[in-house]
Amino acid sequence: MSYNKLTDKLVAAFAGIVGRENCLSDNDSKTIYGQDETEDLLFFPELILRPSTTQQVSEIMRLANSHTIPVTPRGGGTGLSGGALPVHGGIILSMEKFKRIIEIDEKNFQAVVEPGVFTQVFQEECEKRGLYYPPDPSSRGSSHLGGNLAECAGGPRAVKYGVTKDYVLGVEAVLPTGEIINAGGRVLKNVSGYNLTQLIVGSEGTLAIITKIIFRLIPLPRAKKVLLVAFNSLKDAVAAVASIFQRGITPSALEFMERAAVRAAEMQLGKTFPNGNAEAQLLVEVDGNYEETLVKDIEVIAAVVEQHHALDVLLAEDRQKIEDVWALRRSMGEAVKKISTYKEEDTVVPRAALPQLIRGVKEICGKFGITSICYGHAGDGNVHVNILKDKMDDAAWEQHLDTAIREIFHLTVSLGGTISGEHGIGYSQKSYLPIALSDAELNLMKAVKRTFDPNNILNPGKIFED
Amino acid sequence: MSYNKLTDKLVAAFAGIVGRENCLSDNDSKTIYGQDETEDLLFFPELILRPSTTQQVSEIMRLANSHTIPVTPRGGGTGLSGGALPVHGGIILSMEKFKRIIEIDEKNFQAVVEPGVFTQVFQEECEKRGLYYPPDPSSRGSSHLGGNLAECAGGPRAVKYGVTKDYVLGVEAVLPTGEIINAGGRVLKNVSGYNLTQLIVGSEGTLAIITKIIFRLIPLPRAKKVLLVAFNSLKDAVAAVASIFQRGITPSALEFMERAAVRAAEMQLGKTFPNGNAEAQLLVEVDGNYEETLVKDIEVIAAVVEQHHALDVLLAEDRQKIEDVWALRRSMGEAVKKISTYKEEDTVVPRAALPQLIRGVKEICGKFGITSICYGHAGDGNVHVNILKDKMDDAAWEQHLDTAIREIFHLTVSLGGTISGEHGIGYSQKSYLPIALSDAELNLMKAVKRTFDPNNILNPGKIFED
Repeated sequence: MSYNKLTDKLVAAFAGIVGRENCLSDNDSKTIYGQDETEDLLFFPELILRPSTTQQVSEIMRLANSHTIPVTPRGGGTGLSGGALPVHGGIILSMEKFKRIIEIDEKNFQAVVEPGVFTQVFQEECEKRGLYYPPDPSSRGSSHLGGNLAECAGGPRAVKYGVTKDYVLGVEAVLPTGEIINAGGRVLKNVSGYNLTQLIVGSEGTLAIITKIIFRLIPLPRAKKVLLVAFNSLKDAVAAVASIFQRGITPSALEFMERAAVRAAEMQLGKTFPNGNAEAQLLVEVDGNYEETLVKDIEVIAAVVEQHHALDVLLAEDRQKIEDVWALRRSMGEAVKKISTYKEEDTVVPRAALPQLIRGVKEICGKFGITSICYGHAGDGNVHVNILKDKMDDAAWEQHLDTAIREIFHLTVSLGGTISGEHGIGYSQKSYLPIALSDAELNLMKAVKRTFDPNNILNPGKIFED
Repeated sequence: MSYNKLTDKLVAAFAGIVGRENCLSDNDSKTIYGQDETEDLLFFPELILRPSTTQQVSEIMRLANSHTIPVTPRGGGTGLSGGALPVHGGIILSMEKFKRIIEIDEKNFQAVVEPGVFTQVFQEECEKRGLYYPPDPSSRGSSHLGGNLAECAGGPRAVKYGVTKDYVLGVEAVLPTGEIINAGGRVLKNVSGYNLTQLIVGSEGTLAIITKIIFRLIPLPRAKKVLLVAFNSLKDAVAAVASIFQRGITPSALEFMERAAVRAAEMQLGKTFPNGNAEAQLLVEVDGNYEETLVKDIEVIAAVVEQHHALDVLLAEDRQKIEDVWALRRSMGEAVKKISTYKEEDTVVPRAALPQLIRGVKEICGKFGITSICYGHAGDGNVHVNILKDKMDDAAWEQHLDTAIREIFHLTVSLGGTISGEHGIGYSQKSYLPIALSDAELNLMKAVKRTFDPNNILNPGKIFED
């Protein structure tokens, strides 16, 4: 694929659409908009545009499409697979000005929002009204809802409440050709034509630019309790996960953290937690409307983890204690990545296969002398495997990293899993996608991409190998 | 689009794939396989094939595609929008031999099944293991799971548990060209490429033939209670619906039935229920693991319906009484359709707009002298509007029916709703789809269809006007 470079005349035309002040091309801006939270990757865009209306997005796409200029849409820039990186140069289309919560419809438990709203801001506005928007990526303070849709973000509550896609009833979106469509709508059930909504959600900004979102909401649960359970072995901790569900309990979060991850988070927070020495811990949250049933759930969970040789069980019931425990888990991602150069993988398997996955990851990394730190959403089988360079020399790291990752992904797929649960394929994982998908599947996806984007100008160089 | 007719040579080739005994062309079979549950529509296929393996389906599609022979996949034949009718002749591909429940994975709460399994059989096999497959179309005794996926079937439990799509983790499917793909997989979260699973689910057998399904399951709730609430007015009944949710309660079913529908169901069952004279009734079910919290929920609901001027509230707690109440609701569809020639619509709106929808339907039908009977899944805003010919003369029926339906659909869309919540567009609703979708949206969907099915041989004449 060959793209055209932006000329002065084209830059002027784009500036005419969004206004001079929303058309950036200085080096500082190019550096800021040229990276996201994925490792230390940086690609310079030629131009950054900050439209504020759907019409402007449409005009930008028409112009870019007719001149074969690559356009990379960008939300909060918190992605973990390089989805927002302008790997072919061209334009960064920042959605940061789409900041309105247009409506929170308390009668129908729905909301209409623009994609540039911060996830946490939206969560809090819902909660003020007794409503609940469960998707809860760790980056919620700075991630945009539009980016959450693009990557189908998850987070710890997905185990009970599902991921971002499960709350999206519809989107307004601009196609690469500039056409504006509405997919889905303000209804809970919809079989009026193909489900374009769910094709666009999770398509990592490669099929359309989301300009408006219709969410469904649910009533805010009135109570929650959290258990922090320490184990002597990784194996016991992850084996307990499936057992909890088999007792008929669906926790609102069930997180797994190995010792090194807890240690890193403690350092980051500047405080220690009890049982920091335990080889692994589970964070188990239950929520609901009635305190007394949560107490019963907690009793069942305590009994199950005891059968799995838990060392200690700490109960957090008041708001502050619950927040403290969650702070440990939430700070983990950033803390682990500070240790050294790293590669983060986002493996997901059927949850009963977690013991095999974790054992396999440790064996594979051990074989190559690579340090791994695992933590994540054990309840839905989604474990973030952080592979650290640590003290390894550059040559060995270069030599073994890719092989180790491939072995981990082959293991994941052999266990019935796949290579990304919630971070996406983007730029950093695309060479591994053929491990999970057949040629027929990849070809069909590429054909869908061509249908939406015949000139391959929207977020090119993502998901599929060029 | 012009299709080729089957020649003797081609019939022999198809018979060679599935065996003589699974290749039917007698008139009785053509009559049986030429209809579904949609009104009195009948289209003769040229040939009926009953494959039993994915490989056979693949070979059939390769052959049909290379000779431009239309192929219409068929499940249980219980569809309500004509999705399984062979409107362009050609082949009916009956999936009735795909009858295996391959695995119910009690450790991971997942199941792998073939598409020809009856919905109710699968539900019951899950329940025996303490697991729950909530989608519950009225036709569950004779509908196939594959057909449920094709139409994204709903039913009364959708209000709390979601529709069929919300339980599908993946499918194996055969493309119109004969290629076999796997979309999704045995994982609860998956962003490894586009969500082809949710594109295929609800595509009404026009994009691919589903040959295997991976479902997620949930723990079976241990208790439930049902209220049957009578109202003096339609308006009060439907206004109570949104109020129940606003009190933080999510019923496991919230069904609306107007008097004529109750009467028809009573006739069908040969028994009467208390409050059969009430203008409307709501069936409200709550479920969960703890009896005591259900009692609290019931108290809240009783207080809400009283505020909405309920005439009477009946509580069903034991299994038999709960079944009796559900029998009333479940028999309604068939009972109402026995009254006269009819057209059934499947409108869905945001639930707080139900009073406006019901009032509008009555006004529109009244204007044309047409009888309407409404019932359905009020909790998710999905009302089945049955339009009856009754004693109307043929000329007036012919003259006004289409106009009345168009007015109802324009009203539905103006209320934020759409024209089908769970029955699909299929053959009978396709002329109305442009009321809900723009040209840009329709063109994009048609382009997706061409991507999957370049020769338009798979279930042609559905969803889109030719």
